[in-house]
Amino acid sequence: MNTINIQQKFNKFRSNKLFEMFVIFIIIFSALVIGAKTYDISPATLRFVHFLDWLITFIFLTEIIIRFIGEKHKKNFFKQGWNIFDTLIVIVSLIPIEDSELAIVGRLIRIFRVLRMVSIIPELKMLLNSFLIALPQLAYIVALMFIIFYIYAAVGSTFFAHINPVLWGDIAISMLTLFRVMTFEDWTDVQYETMEVYPFSWIYYLSFIFFTAFAFLNMVIGVVVNVLNEEHEKVLQKNTLPEPTNTELQIEIRELKELIKKSLKNK
Amino acid sequence: MNTINIQQKFNKFRSNKLFEMFVIFIIIFSALVIGAKTYDISPATLRFVHFLDWLITFIFLTEIIIRFIGEKHKKNFFKQGWNIFDTLIVIVSLIPIEDSELAIVGRLIRIFRVLRMVSIIPELKMLLNSFLIALPQLAYIVALMFIIFYIYAAVGSTFFAHINPVLWGDIAISMLTLFRVMTFEDWTDVQYETMEVYPFSWIYYLSFIFFTAFAFLNMVIGVVVNVLNEEHEKVLQKNTLPEPTNTELQIEIRELKELIKKSLKNK
Amino acid sequence: MNTINIQQKFNKFRSNKLFEMFVIFIIIFSALVIGAKTYDISPATLRFVHFLDWLITFIFLTEIIIRFIGEKHKKNFFKQGWNIFDTLIVIVSLIPIEDSELAIVGRLIRIFRVLRMVSIIPELKMLLNSFLIALPQLAYIVALMFIIFYIYAAVGSTFFAHINPVLWGDIAISMLTLFRVMTFEDWTDVQYETMEVYPFSWIYYLSFIFFTAFAFLNMVIGVVVNVLNEEHEKVLQKNTLPEPTNTELQIEIRELKELIKKSLKNK
Amino acid sequence: MNTINIQQKFNKFRSNKLFEMFVIFIIIFSALVIGAKTYDISPATLRFVHFLDWLITFIFLTEIIIRFIGEKHKKNFFKQGWNIFDTLIVIVSLIPIEDSELAIVGRLIRIFRVLRMVSIIPELKMLLNSFLIALPQLAYIVALMFIIFYIYAAVGSTFFAHINPVLWGDIAISMLTLFRVMTFEDWTDVQYETMEVYPFSWIYYLSFIFFTAFAFLNMVIGVVVNVLNEEHEKVLQKNTLPEPTNTELQIEIRELKELIKKSLKNK
Repeated sequence: MNTINIQQKFNKFRSNKLFEMFVIFIIIFSALVIGAKTYDISPATLRFVHFLDWLITFIFLTEIIIRFIGEKHKKNFFKQGWNIFDTLIVIVSLIPIEDSELAIVGRLIRIFRVLRMVSIIPELKMLLNSFLIALPQLAYIVALMFIIFYIYAAVGSTFFAHINPVLWGDIAISMLTLFRVMTFEDWTDVQYETMEVYPFSWIYYLSFIFFTAFAFLNMVIGVVVNVLNEEHEKVLQKNTLPEPTNTELQIEIRELKELIKKSLKNK
Repeated sequence: MNTINIQQKFNKFRSNKLFEMFVIFIIIFSALVIGAKTYDISPATLRFVHFLDWLITFIFLTEIIIRFIGEKHKKNFFKQGWNIFDTLIVIVSLIPIEDSELAIVGRLIRIFRVLRMVSIIPELKMLLNSFLIALPQLAYIVALMFIIFYIYAAVGSTFFAHINPVLWGDIAISMLTLFRVMTFEDWTDVQYETMEVYPFSWIYYLSFIFFTAFAFLNMVIGVVVNVLNEEHEKVLQKNTLPEPTNTELQIEIRELKELIKKSLKNK
Repeated sequence: MNTINIQQKFNKFRSNKLFEMFVIFIIIFSALVIGAKTYDISPATLRFVHFLDWLITFIFLTEIIIRFIGEKHKKNFFKQGWNIFDTLIVIVSLIPIEDSELAIVGRLIRIFRVLRMVSIIPELKMLLNSFLIALPQLAYIVALMFIIFYIYAAVGSTFFAHINPVLWGDIAISMLTLFRVMTFEDWTDVQYETMEVYPFSWIYYLSFIFFTAFAFLNMVIGVVVNVLNEEHEKVLQKNTLPEPTNTELQIEIRELKELIKKSLKNK
Repeated sequence: MNTINIQQKFNKFRSNKLFEMFVIFIIIFSALVIGAKTYDISPATLRFVHFLDWLITFIFLTEIIIRFIGEKHKKNFFKQGWNIFDTLIVIVSLIPIEDSELAIVGRLIRIFRVLRMVSIIPELKMLLNSFLIALPQLAYIVALMFIIFYIYAAVGSTFFAHINPVLWGDIAISMLTLFRVMTFEDWTDVQYETMEVYPFSWIYYLSFIFFTAFAFLNMVIGVVVNVLNEEHEKVLQKNTLPEPTNTELQIEIRELKELIKKSLKNK
């Protein structure tokens, strides 16, 4: 009875608007501290910043404990991806890392605290979710694009490797060079270099740009059509619910006929 | 009685097509004067241009006074953002600034006169308004994009600051560098430099380009869907008003049934 | 009687599929001759190419005369923009130009013969017309974009002219530089140069990119919405013609009611 | 009877999920072997890779024979483009090429094996087909774009050839340079060079960018509208089948009228 009481109290507390605002404020403050650390700062300020780091970690720990106690079904807490993400961030922040190798991991973890913003604000969470949902739909186009990249990279590294090994040395480097060509970044420099040896190599670049541009276009259209269809269905559901369909009208007219037929028989 | 008379006269005057054309002509002329000042001109011409500047300011002052007197409810005049903008431009133009520091402000104000074109032509006003209305709808995507930029800038300035402090010195400079990467502007130069130290840093750039491209795509789609929905609703409203809905047809059919039921009872 | 006979004969002739194919072949051949002239060719070949030039001009002249005689109402012939264009091209080609100054005009005219392809093939003509029709709809967005360019160019040439007169010397050059920035072409070079003097000038570039990108986006959306609306209306017209509307159904139901009311009165 | 038995057995075998998975695995393995060959490898490994190459060719040969025997109507087998493609790849792989000239063809053929992935996975096949179907619809816009390119290239090589023969030497090189300008790749370098001789040549570049951008925009819109129309029609077909149209409702109402008229006459 008592534990349920505590749980309900904590649940109320974590849903409190002020508590939420405070957590958002701490996350923004934490982001500013991360930003500050990238500037050249005096050792005294650095010590202060380290102290703030620990303070933020402590506040985050307290917040997660509050949210955990406030949860009715303790098991469900770790079924939500964002809760696991939050807990991991805090736990890794708690481990005192002095070693230079692992210090980088500690720093990265502190940077990823900014992502907690997404887990706190529902609109951003929704946006990221819709982004993650859209990904698998594009899987086949990404696969097709990868095949295009792979074939062109194999051809490129076979023919151009002796011209410029930095750009076409092996298939992995060639794929990076092709990505560069796709973004139009100094692609003519790459092209003019190979055209000196193979004058017709412009066919290679132009066909590649054409295929990837078209595949990318298909990707964009795929996303647009998906979004529009979803919107369309939402509108349809909203509109058709109170409005009778032609089918319902047909049923009414048929009932009418039955009535008139009866009246004819009755005579 | 007399003041109302004057107000009505001025109101008629400011709605006059010729008066409007004259103001538009003066604004275009003012824009040309601004343009002329950027060329190397002889002192004599410069003096003449200064005279034109004062003439334009005087005409604008007269125009605003006419529009103010023509306004029925004097209080409403300053409730419209564009009126405040116009008045401010004229007032600041009237202050004689000789000081080199403030002279720049005077120049800027004279340049912003060109924006008065937007306040005069209703179609441009509407276009800018629709642009300002669209902004808050994109707020969450901009926020998400800012978080992506902030995290990548923090990671970038942590790892790459010692490689090239000009590009990755602190978090602010890193964000500018990332914006450059997003526009594909010589991004491979930035990438090849860091790849010499961290051979796998291409993951950093490719993932960043992927995330921002997708966020930008979502933004565009968001705007397109909004515009299409508005258009769709306009079409719906235009179409459905004269055309009876199925609901109305259903009512008519039910009235019919009632009539027939009555005729059956009557027998 | 005789002239009408000739006119009908020529009209039949110009509508002949073979005649059309021949003209298209001559235009393509003319385009190839133009292309050939850009290569280094021997004097003998050049003389032959000149002969071909005159032959093509002669064939085009004959073709226009045939089409003119084939026209029923001679006045209408010069009411069509494409006929005037074709005639002008041929007439200017006929003038023997030796002078080096005017020789360029003669060359240009010969190049523009390729555009005759558009006037011959109806699908290309339609495409170009739809392109010209779309232009005025975009007039206000283009005007808004020009105002943005003009203001930024005025600000740019006021502040940056002493840093790099080649890029920001006067308002015209500044607008060209801004167009370059809009296409993301080495825009960071321009930016880094001014940031050395004004460290906050990145605000200038980022806000400009933001405004123009958004204006451009609006332009694209405007065109898309226009096209979709036209398509939508076409679909509506096609669908609604054989299908009775709800209004027509309502009329039928009302006639039904009248019939039943009559039957009730009759009793 | 016996042959039909064998054919059915082989048909069952080739539709087997495990057999399909095995073929996909071999194609991926073949792609990895192709990738491995682009790295510097020891002669021993190279010999092993060559052995793998022959093994893959043998497996592919076996697979095609199985699929051919499994085919009911032997003639239909070579009517499908993908079967011809697969057979060609295998046959050319079988020819032992030692000559350095033809060795390149052999290498290319081995690279194109990766495309077999598309012929095996139905979703990728569908994607590529939809891509090939979309191409002819764009034919006229591509033609218009080619005419724009050709005219600008002719003008460019006429006026700019003496400025920079590398970029504007003849009409073919000029078209390549214009493609570079269209992708905004260091286009200002090209422009500034010609502006030193012809100060107004920026008109040439800006008008070209404008025309091609607009033509490209039209192309994108054309594809989007096509896709949306197809989607729209799919939705229409799905929705209209069970739902009676207004026409059907009208028929029902007319039958009703006939019934009532009869009842009136009967009295």
